[in-house]
Amino acid sequence: MAISTKPPTGTRDFLPETMAQRRAVIGTVEEVYRRYGFLPLETPAIENLSTLLGKYGDEGDQLIFRLLHRGEKLSRLLEENPAAVRESQLADLGLRYDLTVPLARVVAEHGSRLPKFFRRFQIQPVWRADRPGHGRFREFYQCDADIIGSESMTVEADLLSAVCEIFDGLGFADVRIKVNHRQLLFALVDAAGIPEAQETEALVAMDKLDKIGADGVVRELLGRGIAAAAVEALRPVLSQELGDGNAALLDALTARVGDSERGAKGLADLREVLRMCDRSPAAGRLTVDPVLARGLSYYTGPIFEVEVADLAGSLAGGGRYDELIGMFLGRRVPACGIALGLERILVVMAERNMFAPSTDGPQVLVTCWSEELAPEGLALATELRRAGLRVELYPEKTKLGKQLKYAGSREIPLAAIMAPDEVERGTVQLKDLRSGEKHDCLRGEVCDRARALLGGDSP
Amino acid sequence: MAISTKPPTGTRDFLPETMAQRRAVIGTVEEVYRRYGFLPLETPAIENLSTLLGKYGDEGDQLIFRLLHRGEKLSRLLEENPAAVRESQLADLGLRYDLTVPLARVVAEHGSRLPKFFRRFQIQPVWRADRPGHGRFREFYQCDADIIGSESMTVEADLLSAVCEIFDGLGFADVRIKVNHRQLLFALVDAAGIPEAQETEALVAMDKLDKIGADGVVRELLGRGIAAAAVEALRPVLSQELGDGNAALLDALTARVGDSERGAKGLADLREVLRMCDRSPAAGRLTVDPVLARGLSYYTGPIFEVEVADLAGSLAGGGRYDELIGMFLGRRVPACGIALGLERILVVMAERNMFAPSTDGPQVLVTCWSEELAPEGLALATELRRAGLRVELYPEKTKLGKQLKYAGSREIPLAAIMAPDEVERGTVQLKDLRSGEKHDCLRGEVCDRARALLGGDSP
Repeated sequence: MAISTKPPTGTRDFLPETMAQRRAVIGTVEEVYRRYGFLPLETPAIENLSTLLGKYGDEGDQLIFRLLHRGEKLSRLLEENPAAVRESQLADLGLRYDLTVPLARVVAEHGSRLPKFFRRFQIQPVWRADRPGHGRFREFYQCDADIIGSESMTVEADLLSAVCEIFDGLGFADVRIKVNHRQLLFALVDAAGIPEAQETEALVAMDKLDKIGADGVVRELLGRGIAAAAVEALRPVLSQELGDGNAALLDALTARVGDSERGAKGLADLREVLRMCDRSPAAGRLTVDPVLARGLSYYTGPIFEVEVADLAGSLAGGGRYDELIGMFLGRRVPACGIALGLERILVVMAERNMFAPSTDGPQVLVTCWSEELAPEGLALATELRRAGLRVELYPEKTKLGKQLKYAGSREIPLAAIMAPDEVERGTVQLKDLRSGEKHDCLRGEVCDRARALLGGDSP
Repeated sequence: MAISTKPPTGTRDFLPETMAQRRAVIGTVEEVYRRYGFLPLETPAIENLSTLLGKYGDEGDQLIFRLLHRGEKLSRLLEENPAAVRESQLADLGLRYDLTVPLARVVAEHGSRLPKFFRRFQIQPVWRADRPGHGRFREFYQCDADIIGSESMTVEADLLSAVCEIFDGLGFADVRIKVNHRQLLFALVDAAGIPEAQETEALVAMDKLDKIGADGVVRELLGRGIAAAAVEALRPVLSQELGDGNAALLDALTARVGDSERGAKGLADLREVLRMCDRSPAAGRLTVDPVLARGLSYYTGPIFEVEVADLAGSLAGGGRYDELIGMFLGRRVPACGIALGLERILVVMAERNMFAPSTDGPQVLVTCWSEELAPEGLALATELRRAGLRVELYPEKTKLGKQLKYAGSREIPLAAIMAPDEVERGTVQLKDLRSGEKHDCLRGEVCDRARALLGGDSP
C-alpha cells in the first residue's frame, strides 16, 4: 500500500466546495464573453511539438511537457543506437502551453469555415513544467478571448471592455490596466543607444521592474553587457519620471523616440486605444506603462496587463500578435487577445472573502426505512427530482436518527421519511432540519410542499 | 511554412457549432447528475504512473500516454549508461486514462473531508493511445457519476435511474440496459469446468460476443487452449438460450451455478437490483445478460452497459468496484459508478438529427460608420450588452452594405446603425435583417426596442 495518493507536484484535486467557487468564476467569465459576441472553441490537450516549439521563447520551450513515444517506435530507438538517443527523438507530441498558439493553428487550419472576424473564447487547462509556488501550478486554467482579422484598435478596446466587465462582475472594484506597445518598447531601447542584437536582452531585464525595482533593472542591464551610457539613457523611463498622466507621458515619449517609425506607430496605436476606450467600461482605468514588456515572444503591438491594488503580478494579460498566425499560414492575419489567469483570480477572491456561500448541494435526503421499502424511496426520489429538486437517497437501512444526523452534517435542509404506516396511508413526512418541524403531507403534494419549505432555495 | 496545422492523430478541434452540441449534451448530463445529488469533482490530467499502472489490465497499461522526463534528469539518464535505458526510467507521469482510478485515489487521499456516502460527478477528457477509428479517439470526454461507501444495491438502482433520465432528457426513446455480475460470470465459467488460471482468458473471449457471435467466441475459446468439453458446456450461455425474460433466465442460471458461493452472490445481487429498480426510471429497461463482461479489470460486482437499438457497442457502462479504493487506502471501501461516453452519444445524436439548431450566437451587430464615431459604437454596444444581449462590434470602417452582408452571413438578426446625423439627433437605427425593416429609435429606448424585436430569442 505504498502508492502515494497525492496528485503529482504542481497539480491539484478540486473537491466539490472548491469546484463551486471555480465554476462561479468561470460562469461569470463565460457569461460576459458571450454577451461580447465571443463563441466557444476547444482544442486538444495534446499538440504536435512542431506547433508548440519556437513560439514562447527559449525558456518557454524548456517548460513544455513532452509525451514519450510508445511501443515499437520507442524500443527500436532504445535498441538501435542507444548512445545516440537525444531528447528530441523521444517525443513529437507535447501538452498545450497556452491557448493562443492552438488558436493560431486552428485559424490556419479551419480559416475558411470561420467568420471573417473570428471572436472566440476558450476556457481550458494548460500545462507548464514550471517550479510550483504560491499561486503557480503546473496545470492551470486560462480563460481567453481573442479577435482575429482586424488591425483596428477597436479590437483592443472591445477586449479591454470585456475584461473590465468581468472583473466588475466578479466584484473587484479596483481593477487597473497597464498598457504599452511592443514597437514603442523597441523604439525606446533603440533611442537609448542599445544595438538591435541586445534588444531582447534589454526587454527581459526591463520586464522585471515590478520585482526588482529600477536600480535592480539597471544592475541587470549592466550585468547583461549593455553599455553604461545606454543604461543611463534608459533610466528616466525605468524610474517612471517622464510625465504624470497618460497624455503628458505620451508627449514625453514622443520626444524621446524622435523620428523612429516604430516609435511613432506605437504611440499612434496607444493614443487610438485610449480614444476608443473613452466611453467604454475601460474608460479611466488605463495607464500607459512604457516598461511593461510581457514575456511571450509573439506579441507585436499593444500589450496589456490587468492588476488589482494590493497584489504583485497581474490577473490577466494580453496583446496583439499580428505575425503568429502567419507562422502557420504563410500569410499575415492580424489578431489580438486577452488571457485571464483563473488560478490567481481565485486566490485573490479567496483572500478577500469574495465568494458567496455555495448553495448547490442536495436539498432533500430521502431516508431508508427498510430494505423492503427501499424501492418506495427510489420512487419518491424520482418524483422530487422530476420536480427539479436536488435529492440524495440514503442508500442503506440504519437508525433514522443516524440518517437525519447525516443530513444535518451535509447541510441538507429537508428529510423525507416513509414508515410502513405512512406508505399504507399514502403520506410522507417532510422534516425540516433547520427548524426541526415535521410536516405530514399527502404523497401527491410532497413536491409542492418541499418546494414551498425550501422557499427561495428551490429552482 | 511546413508546419502541419492539423491537430495530432486521434484528437480534434471543436469549432463553435460543434461546441454548441457538446455543451448541450453536457448541460443535460450535468443537470440530471445535480438533481440526483451528485457533486462536481475535477482531478489533474496528469497522474503518477504508480497510480495508473495495474488498474486497467495489461492492454490498458500499454495505452497510457507517458510524460518524458525533462532537463537534467533526462540528460543524466541518457549520458550515464544509454545502453541500459528502459522505458520505465524515462517517465514517472502519465495522462489520465479514465475518471474512476483518479476518484479512487481522491477518496483515499481526502476521505476524511468527504461525506460518508460520496456522490460525485466528473466530466473531463481522458487519453488513450488507441488506434483511432470511427467514433474512437485518443482524447475523449467521459461523464462519470459514482457513489462511494455503500454495498446496498440501491446504489446501482440510483445510478441506473440517473442514466435513464439522462438519455430520456437527450431525446433517446429506446435505451436498454444490459446487466450482469462479475461473480456470476466467474461462477458460470467455473461451472463449465474452466480452471481458475484460465478464467480471465475465457472472459476476454466471451466479451467479444457482440462482435464475433457465439460461434466466433467458441473458436476463440478453443484457440486460447480451453478444453473442448468446457467450451461445449458454456455454449448454451453464449447462445443465450437459457430462458426468456429476466426471471426465467435467473432461474436457469441458478440451476447452472449450483452451490457456487460466487454464483449465489451474483444472482442475489442481480435480483436485488431488479427489485430496487422496479418503480424507478430504469424499470422495464434492464436485461440480464450473463455474457456481458466489460473490459476493465477493477469490477467486482454488478456491471452494466447502456445501448440503443441500431448501434453496436454501448453509450455508457459501469459497475461495482469494491476493491479498487483499497488498492490505494489499504482498507476496503465499496464503490459503484457509471461512465457516459460523450463522443459516442454525440455521434449517434448527429446521425439521428437530434440536435436543435444552435441559438447562442450574437443577436446584434453594432456597425462602424467611421473611425471617428467608433467610440460611440463601443458605448452603444456596452449598453446593449449590459441589457443582456449578445453583441458583436464590427471592428473597422467599410461600406455599410458590406457590414450588413457580414451580419447576414453570420445569421445575426439585428444591426445597429449610427450615422453622424443620428448621433446628433440622439437616435439609432435598428435594422431587422430577417425582415429588412428599419426602426428608428431614441438612444434611450434602443435596448428595449432590440429586445422586443428579438422576441423569444432574447434572455
